[in-house]
Amino acid sequence: MAVPPSTYPHRLLPLFLGLFQAAMLLFFALFVTYDEPSAQEKDTSLVAHQVYSTFPFFQDIQVMLVVGLGLLLTFLPRYGFSSLTHNFLLLNFSMQWALVLQGLLHHFHHGQIHLDLHKLLISEFAAVTVLISVGAILGRASPCQLLAMATCEVPIYLASEWVIVTCLGVLDVGGTITIHIFSCYFGLGVSKALFGATQQPLHPKETPTPSSDLMSLVGTLILWVFWPSFVAVLCQPGDAQHRAILNTLLAMSAGAITTVVASSLLERDGKLSPGHLQNGSLAGGVAIGVVADMAVPPVASLALGSLSAVVCVLGFRFLTPLLGRKLTLHDQCGIHNLHGLPGILGAAASVMAVLVASKDTS
Amino acid sequence: MAVPPSTYPHRLLPLFLGLFQAAMLLFFALFVTYDEPSAQEKDTSLVAHQVYSTFPFFQDIQVMLVVGLGLLLTFLPRYGFSSLTHNFLLLNFSMQWALVLQGLLHHFHHGQIHLDLHKLLISEFAAVTVLISVGAILGRASPCQLLAMATCEVPIYLASEWVIVTCLGVLDVGGTITIHIFSCYFGLGVSKALFGATQQPLHPKETPTPSSDLMSLVGTLILWVFWPSFVAVLCQPGDAQHRAILNTLLAMSAGAITTVVASSLLERDGKLSPGHLQNGSLAGGVAIGVVADMAVPPVASLALGSLSAVVCVLGFRFLTPLLGRKLTLHDQCGIHNLHGLPGILGAAASVMAVLVASKDTS
Amino acid sequence: MAVPPSTYPHRLLPLFLGLFQAAMLLFFALFVTYDEPSAQEKDTSLVAHQVYSTFPFFQDIQVMLVVGLGLLLTFLPRYGFSSLTHNFLLLNFSMQWALVLQGLLHHFHHGQIHLDLHKLLISEFAAVTVLISVGAILGRASPCQLLAMATCEVPIYLASEWVIVTCLGVLDVGGTITIHIFSCYFGLGVSKALFGATQQPLHPKETPTPSSDLMSLVGTLILWVFWPSFVAVLCQPGDAQHRAILNTLLAMSAGAITTVVASSLLERDGKLSPGHLQNGSLAGGVAIGVVADMAVPPVASLALGSLSAVVCVLGFRFLTPLLGRKLTLHDQCGIHNLHGLPGILGAAASVMAVLVASKDTS
Repeated sequence: MAVPPSTYPHRLLPLFLGLFQAAMLLFFALFVTYDEPSAQEKDTSLVAHQVYSTFPFFQDIQVMLVVGLGLLLTFLPRYGFSSLTHNFLLLNFSMQWALVLQGLLHHFHHGQIHLDLHKLLISEFAAVTVLISVGAILGRASPCQLLAMATCEVPIYLASEWVIVTCLGVLDVGGTITIHIFSCYFGLGVSKALFGATQQPLHPKETPTPSSDLMSLVGTLILWVFWPSFVAVLCQPGDAQHRAILNTLLAMSAGAITTVVASSLLERDGKLSPGHLQNGSLAGGVAIGVVADMAVPPVASLALGSLSAVVCVLGFRFLTPLLGRKLTLHDQCGIHNLHGLPGILGAAASVMAVLVASKDTS
Repeated sequence: MAVPPSTYPHRLLPLFLGLFQAAMLLFFALFVTYDEPSAQEKDTSLVAHQVYSTFPFFQDIQVMLVVGLGLLLTFLPRYGFSSLTHNFLLLNFSMQWALVLQGLLHHFHHGQIHLDLHKLLISEFAAVTVLISVGAILGRASPCQLLAMATCEVPIYLASEWVIVTCLGVLDVGGTITIHIFSCYFGLGVSKALFGATQQPLHPKETPTPSSDLMSLVGTLILWVFWPSFVAVLCQPGDAQHRAILNTLLAMSAGAITTVVASSLLERDGKLSPGHLQNGSLAGGVAIGVVADMAVPPVASLALGSLSAVVCVLGFRFLTPLLGRKLTLHDQCGIHNLHGLPGILGAAASVMAVLVASKDTS
Repeated sequence: MAVPPSTYPHRLLPLFLGLFQAAMLLFFALFVTYDEPSAQEKDTSLVAHQVYSTFPFFQDIQVMLVVGLGLLLTFLPRYGFSSLTHNFLLLNFSMQWALVLQGLLHHFHHGQIHLDLHKLLISEFAAVTVLISVGAILGRASPCQLLAMATCEVPIYLASEWVIVTCLGVLDVGGTITIHIFSCYFGLGVSKALFGATQQPLHPKETPTPSSDLMSLVGTLILWVFWPSFVAVLCQPGDAQHRAILNTLLAMSAGAITTVVASSLLERDGKLSPGHLQNGSLAGGVAIGVVADMAVPPVASLALGSLSAVVCVLGFRFLTPLLGRKLTLHDQCGIHNLHGLPGILGAAASVMAVLVASKDTS
């Protein structure tokens, strides 16, 4: 790993991770089981149906997180390999950790947790928050710091998700509020706490090369392609899921075009900035999540996608340097521009959609 | 973007794209809507079935176009990043543009276009023609020239597809004629019109490096893997779709092996040419499209795959230099060898298949 | 190709491959056909169901073998392009060869072989053994040697699989014994036979670079993501398939974390070895194959995943250098550590699982 070994004790990482995996083994041995095999034929075809309707979406999301997000983070050539590794490690760590916590909170019946694909998927969503937050401190934090962050973030996410979805009754099928906004501000808070005091100069090797920009853009494109699966996987099968897929496709497409418009207007010589492309193209997907399965017209998805791309590019151009100067807030990957601002835009759109819908029906 | 900024006005690209996206918003606001939510439970399960049977194919095709084709075009290291970006931009632009045109032509009922996944898929197919044609002028045309080409090509494609499929009644499930042959000769025409007069010398940096050849081959492999989805997505579910998948798999497999044979026979020292591998392996998929769902025997798919690979490799070795010398026709990616020649071969095969079938039944 | 052309006659490769493809054409023309189109509507929906339940898994496995395994093998920068090419060529060659042999052995009725997706899948599994064995001699053998090996290995695999599965009645849904253990020791045997006598010094360019390590890790991650499809594709739909997916996911996740633990404990400065990550993360998938669809508790999958990662990393650190020194046995990619040792572990686990299950029911 690229972090100089002198900054953390060598044995802390394997010790912490080894104890964690041992504790997982103990917990699974005591409390986790599978459903009893279905006795009846009808149940079998039901299970088969669930597998076929969820598993392809699940695989798409795994590709997004492991390959797509991993490659997106390799834009700093010096940290390319470790970014990919850390992303992979944190996904597995957070997923197992969320599985345990969610099992204890929600699914603990008669002393046992019955594991199924849906519970793994929900845990994967919890892990996404960690992977997003990491973007704020990429290449600056040691693996142990990242794991400590993940250990704290997962339970706080579960609590905040419970408050937002269960207590407040907010519908957020694509995780715009519960995942993107939450993890963005959590990550920025961690960045401020860890590195806020020091005005760190940029490492001379912390500049993307053409080759690392290309790999990172490939990551963006993989995320872009599979984003509809991420938004639609938890929707009601049928109309709602179909609409969520269409809305997400429209928002992603408008976002991609608008990113090019915004970026080439802002750059002096009309060239496109790789960073804008890598992030702006995805902003539409962040914003659309919260309204994707609602009965919004197609034009709303297009508009929301365009608007979030504009906001994202403007954020990179003006807000990130400003935050760095005024608040000494470092945001290495610009997660505030990709997850924070479009998330807030999506949340505002969902409030409007609900107001319009309630006016229509009254 | 790598094209020197002096060759086009800086503000033309964002202006054009911005106006386009604004016009899209207006059009969608006025005319595009979703289907009414299905009231009955039976309809819901029908929609769900359509989603599960089309969406995985749709995602496969998106991966092909955005990641696979994008990477295939990065073989010129100097234009790697902009090839990937232009491909992505053109896909989104052409898809939205085709959505509007096809909506107006075919799906305009009571002043409204009802959007669904199938219509998006059909528009994506229209966008493919643009992405193929671009291969002829890759790295030579400015983004604005590419967008102007896409603006013209999509309506011409729709007209030609209407003539071929609706008027002439040609069955072309994999788009061999309507997509591959059409876009090849359209692209060559544009190349001749734009750059035909000048005998351009090759830019010294326009040589593939080992690293760019590797990335390009990865793109080929992604296209190779998902090609059966492209050919089979529009087939009748059941036997026809099953047969289309099998025929495509056989043709792709035979094409891959035959490419190695042809390439190592033609090269003096027996080494394989990266360009042959990157293109020849896919030629079988181009040719098989038009007969894939017909009742052709397995040996015909194998033979067609082999033959198109041979034709493609021969084209690269002899025809492309000849066209460049005699007609000053530049074909940067060799689309004539990958899409033109195998497409003509496939069309000839489909004529034979129809003749044989009509003789059998008479 | 990187192998110096003087080591083999230039024309042998195209001659051999060309004859092979011609023989395939002849064989297909004489003996291979498709099923008759189903006459009844019910049959059509049955075929459609089979397509939708098998085809997505099939595509996942194709991505694993063509893109994932191909990229994993590019860690030697000097042989990157040819590794990817050879892997692709061998997959197609072995798949067609296995299709013929399996057709002759198992599916030859009334002088015809009825081709379907399932038979292609089974042939693909046979091809996997070749792709694994190649890892032992990567970058040292000429393409002709590789093809000769594939020609021999496929029939021997089919015989050994017939003995293990049909005669001995071993259940091995994920191919732990029939594929991984078999191909590992076959590959090591070939390596010993071809290069065992000479103590070859490492070529100076045979060292992974940061860039080739990154690409190789991307290959690992693609394999990691799609491994559950590989293990579950041949399971009974319903509970068994669901459980196979979950068991594989758990084993892969535990394996990924434990690899980091083991690797950073073994390396002096606590840094992670790219080779350990690229292989150890997948060891859990190798071991779980044989028990994946059995009624093992979740904790057993976690434990098996962890244990195989430990064994794999220990193998790289201690066993591979030992075998090289004592037996002059070269294992270029460490297939003994990734396929041999975890495979044996999985086989032992399956014996335990069967013993426990038979004790429970008695």
